[in-house]
Amino acid sequence: MRGLKVAVVGAAGAVGTQVVRLLEERRFPVSELRLMATKRSAGTRVAFRGEELVVEETSPDALDGAELVFMAVGTEASRELAPVAARRGAVVIDKSNAFRMDPEVPLVVPEVNPHHLKGHKGIIASPNCSTIQMVVALQPIRERAGLRRVIVSTYQSVSGTGVDAMAELREQTRQALDEKPLTRQVYPHQIAFNCLPHIDSFDANGYTLEEMKLVRETRRIFADEDLPVTATAVRVPVFIGHSEAVTVQTEHPLPADEAREALRRAPGVVVRDDPQNNVYPLPVDAAGRDEVFVGRIREDLALENGLSFWVVADNLRKGAATNAVQIAETMFREGML
Amino acid sequence: MRGLKVAVVGAAGAVGTQVVRLLEERRFPVSELRLMATKRSAGTRVAFRGEELVVEETSPDALDGAELVFMAVGTEASRELAPVAARRGAVVIDKSNAFRMDPEVPLVVPEVNPHHLKGHKGIIASPNCSTIQMVVALQPIRERAGLRRVIVSTYQSVSGTGVDAMAELREQTRQALDEKPLTRQVYPHQIAFNCLPHIDSFDANGYTLEEMKLVRETRRIFADEDLPVTATAVRVPVFIGHSEAVTVQTEHPLPADEAREALRRAPGVVVRDDPQNNVYPLPVDAAGRDEVFVGRIREDLALENGLSFWVVADNLRKGAATNAVQIAETMFREGML
Repeated sequence: MRGLKVAVVGAAGAVGTQVVRLLEERRFPVSELRLMATKRSAGTRVAFRGEELVVEETSPDALDGAELVFMAVGTEASRELAPVAARRGAVVIDKSNAFRMDPEVPLVVPEVNPHHLKGHKGIIASPNCSTIQMVVALQPIRERAGLRRVIVSTYQSVSGTGVDAMAELREQTRQALDEKPLTRQVYPHQIAFNCLPHIDSFDANGYTLEEMKLVRETRRIFADEDLPVTATAVRVPVFIGHSEAVTVQTEHPLPADEAREALRRAPGVVVRDDPQNNVYPLPVDAAGRDEVFVGRIREDLALENGLSFWVVADNLRKGAATNAVQIAETMFREGML
Repeated sequence: MRGLKVAVVGAAGAVGTQVVRLLEERRFPVSELRLMATKRSAGTRVAFRGEELVVEETSPDALDGAELVFMAVGTEASRELAPVAARRGAVVIDKSNAFRMDPEVPLVVPEVNPHHLKGHKGIIASPNCSTIQMVVALQPIRERAGLRRVIVSTYQSVSGTGVDAMAELREQTRQALDEKPLTRQVYPHQIAFNCLPHIDSFDANGYTLEEMKLVRETRRIFADEDLPVTATAVRVPVFIGHSEAVTVQTEHPLPADEAREALRRAPGVVVRDDPQNNVYPLPVDAAGRDEVFVGRIREDLALENGLSFWVVADNLRKGAATNAVQIAETMFREGML
């Protein structure tokens, strides 16, 4: 099988290291792999197929010759580098917020809208972690009964913020247990044994950017610009794995049993729904897995044609790295790479 | 001022000790205080107004002569003892689930439905923790705009389960940080660094009893038996303080600014709502306080006449002990005690 020249930008970060691991685990056809990061992380060694690759400093020239570039960096860095790599002929799969609302850039979750990849112009955006897992769970319901509105409350892990936040949770938790003063650097308030209804910055409408991503990205992925979506995004003291309490109103009635059956057959979904035996999705179980876990599927008590359920996924994997690699796999399979 | 002969049953538990503390803090007119608990906890000493009171074993005879009894025990124990105390002439304020749906027993949150106390027959029920804080926040919105439906996701602390659960969270957290095997006794799954979408037992409809309490108690307190309410109740690794993401649809439009102003003037509510300056309610700030904290008040994006907000309260205080003592204060003020 033909192999591709692949580059991973941000290869020393929480998502970038997962991308490298997934390229190996999922036997993605790589003929050459270049790893890049900021100057600070250059020199880091990362294992790939039994070899140790050295992370080099990111530069436009280092991207030359790459056929496929995974960008696992912040919005500003992506905005600068992704067009450079695309102009030099690469397909760029970008996990940042830089291009998600750009009408020229497809925003893709392979289980939901792979057809949006057609006609791409070199850059493909992967949605935000909390959106990806929600739309994977919504898709089989939408296919069968249509969606009229979506209401979601999130329980998001600190790894979504990054490795510094994971260190802060670990540190503060120990300080709290030892009854010592808590130190803070990443979050504006204590995260140990606390819940912060604040992820990303606040918009003028009182919603956070994280909440508005759930609204706008969901509409774009479903190509349903008027779909009413509302969200409350909350950071909880969990290391890996985002959870979501989702309530939907469907166009047509869909009994919980039928929704459960549809979810069971849906790609990328694992149904864990036997509450009488304490079986439901949990972030600690989803960590390290590529699927989206759905449970607590029940008919809603407050909305006509309403369904409520609980969705959990590893935010670093399906919420970021896995989705990016799956986009590449889809494009390779479809001859777009 | 006249004082009352008061008994606290369950005086060694998480809520019972708070009741004793609040009777002192709030200068409730007590002429005599008797503390009772199970045989296991009898002999415990509890401070009250500079004295050390000894907890005695609960028995019907020990309740003789009490004019006011706070029951801070489980449902079974309440079902047995509350009628005994009431028959012997006491007013019983019960925090358990035993009588909350009994049409003969008022279910009261003093800020919301103090008028339901009239015509009581000796037993008054205090609602479940998660209901109390929600209805206190809903009441000013309901007064101004009416309620059409309520959708709530909870983030509940382990102290709602009891002192054993607090010890389990502490223990498991240390084990997780030290990468040791986790021990479990209280919860069916790990609670450290995890979220459990499971509080109390499961009903046949797929909802937990905790979720159905939010539904049924809210309807009863508002005397609105058809109000559509739906809930997802989740246990999070927080010691004290329940949080709730609430979305409501009102009968009439109510702009977020007016809702905020109404909440500011509402009894028992503290508005913390300046997100641009990182000001919003947090469980660690609510712990030890008697008020209900409300923030993130915003117009909802998915429902016509919709509002979303974030409500936090100390589940042991306003969610249990404070509400019980406030019921007693109201009855004393109104000459019912």
